[in-house]
Amino acid sequence: MSISIVGSVAFDTLHSHEGTRERILGGSAVYASIAASNYAPSSIIGVVGKDFPNNYLDLLKSRNINIQDIQVLEGKTFHWTGSYLEDLNKAKTISTEIGVLGNFHPALTRDTSDSCFLFLANNDPDILLEAIHQSRSKYIALDTMNLWIETKRDLLLQALQYADIFFINDGEIRLLKDNMNIIKTASWMFENFQNLKYLIVKKGEYGATIFGRKPEEYFNIGAYPLHLVKDPTGAGDTFAGSFLGYVCKKGSFDWATMKEALLVGTVNASFTVEEFGLDKLLSISTKDIEQRMDLLKKYSTL
Amino acid sequence: MSISIVGSVAFDTLHSHEGTRERILGGSAVYASIAASNYAPSSIIGVVGKDFPNNYLDLLKSRNINIQDIQVLEGKTFHWTGSYLEDLNKAKTISTEIGVLGNFHPALTRDTSDSCFLFLANNDPDILLEAIHQSRSKYIALDTMNLWIETKRDLLLQALQYADIFFINDGEIRLLKDNMNIIKTASWMFENFQNLKYLIVKKGEYGATIFGRKPEEYFNIGAYPLHLVKDPTGAGDTFAGSFLGYVCKKGSFDWATMKEALLVGTVNASFTVEEFGLDKLLSISTKDIEQRMDLLKKYSTL
Repeated sequence: MSISIVGSVAFDTLHSHEGTRERILGGSAVYASIAASNYAPSSIIGVVGKDFPNNYLDLLKSRNINIQDIQVLEGKTFHWTGSYLEDLNKAKTISTEIGVLGNFHPALTRDTSDSCFLFLANNDPDILLEAIHQSRSKYIALDTMNLWIETKRDLLLQALQYADIFFINDGEIRLLKDNMNIIKTASWMFENFQNLKYLIVKKGEYGATIFGRKPEEYFNIGAYPLHLVKDPTGAGDTFAGSFLGYVCKKGSFDWATMKEALLVGTVNASFTVEEFGLDKLLSISTKDIEQRMDLLKKYSTL
Repeated sequence: MSISIVGSVAFDTLHSHEGTRERILGGSAVYASIAASNYAPSSIIGVVGKDFPNNYLDLLKSRNINIQDIQVLEGKTFHWTGSYLEDLNKAKTISTEIGVLGNFHPALTRDTSDSCFLFLANNDPDILLEAIHQSRSKYIALDTMNLWIETKRDLLLQALQYADIFFINDGEIRLLKDNMNIIKTASWMFENFQNLKYLIVKKGEYGATIFGRKPEEYFNIGAYPLHLVKDPTGAGDTFAGSFLGYVCKKGSFDWATMKEALLVGTVNASFTVEEFGLDKLLSISTKDIEQRMDLLKKYSTL
């Protein structure tokens, strides 16, 4: 079974204390699909402009990623320019050239509608709902960001009614409901979203926490300790992509699998942030991942 | 063996979203010694004014805490007024009535100079050094705060040369050296402070991390998940006091003991923050602590 990923395919221009990169391959669907490809095949549902280089598409194909539902439209590819100079933990958007992404409507073909997971990366809740209504996937996973919580909260909560798994940042989950703490918000979510099975809170350098519906289903893991973070772009999408890829590969949706997937996501994301863009994620082997997983397990076990 | 604790004995006036408390018993040495008393006897080296109620001293004695080195001076007891209304994670000082603490010079008598640990809670580095020079304790543990890093860095680093164990907050450790990340700062510390055996970074709601001198000595634990935090005052001192009490009781200074002590500190602090002041910490039993330790272990184990 494969994972269908609805998200951005983009050019990123990035500034951090470790340097600058211009118009490199980026976008939520790209990070998520490449990370997922360590475990399961995936498809991208997205859009690029006519300016998108073929070698970027070839790179995706070389990772066994299905690109047939990437629309190529007249116009420019989405281009995000961000800076981590002020705060390594929080991207500051310098500019956004929306390009063809402004006219994007996901179109899931037979191949991509019927998958293990439909993963909806951060997107306008209108787009989330469009994709959800076309999906015949076994499970739906969803990520979001503060922008949509603040501007389209009702539609976002509507989309969340379909989510089996919800990924959200530490800072963002507090915006969801009355600025409550994470533990309380988790309880509120399971009470109000009947389809939700697992909630994953991504905490950046502090690791990640997963909640299940049962009170005893709580698991927390610290981040893999790194001496240097060069570029946090794509860490969250790497996390989600590898998490879902692992669950899809295991073919199990139980609590034990979810805890392992949290470790998988944490470790994959630790590679992404070590170099700019996809440089590190593309260069690692299964053995590299396993080594870090063993170490992180050791670092978390009494 | 017992623990000698140099720190404040104070009145606290506290404001949080859960209410207000006026002139309740507080101070770093009080929290640390009560938490330590769950594991080992302790002594306080501190100062109070003539206004300090006898029943507060009786309370300390009832926990098997040696108060013979608490000086009672003409004048007022240190009184701190703080608020968590803006940010539950960061105390805002409303007022500080320094009182007799302004003339404090620690005097360690035979009983308190010769202990398992000398724990120096957050204090002016001049005071830290005064106490260090009187000590014949087996090990020295030290805590600090941003104020001293910013205003008396050189003296603080001098005191740190004597520390076997150093407790510091997440936000504060970044101030120590070039705003580096925690992992890098830990390496810098072990290179520059030859006596340092273990570094403990307290991260509030994100838990705590301990580093040893060997690269593989790294252990992280999340906080115990709480639906409500009423008053974080004293959490760090509770953490340090129970950590050191546990190590003292075990009589071992090895890595396995340190990891267990991190769990002990994290769990004890989780009780402190649930109610105002010492209310919860004074009401719990060994069984309550053990129950949470078992749960937190489960929440952190794959």
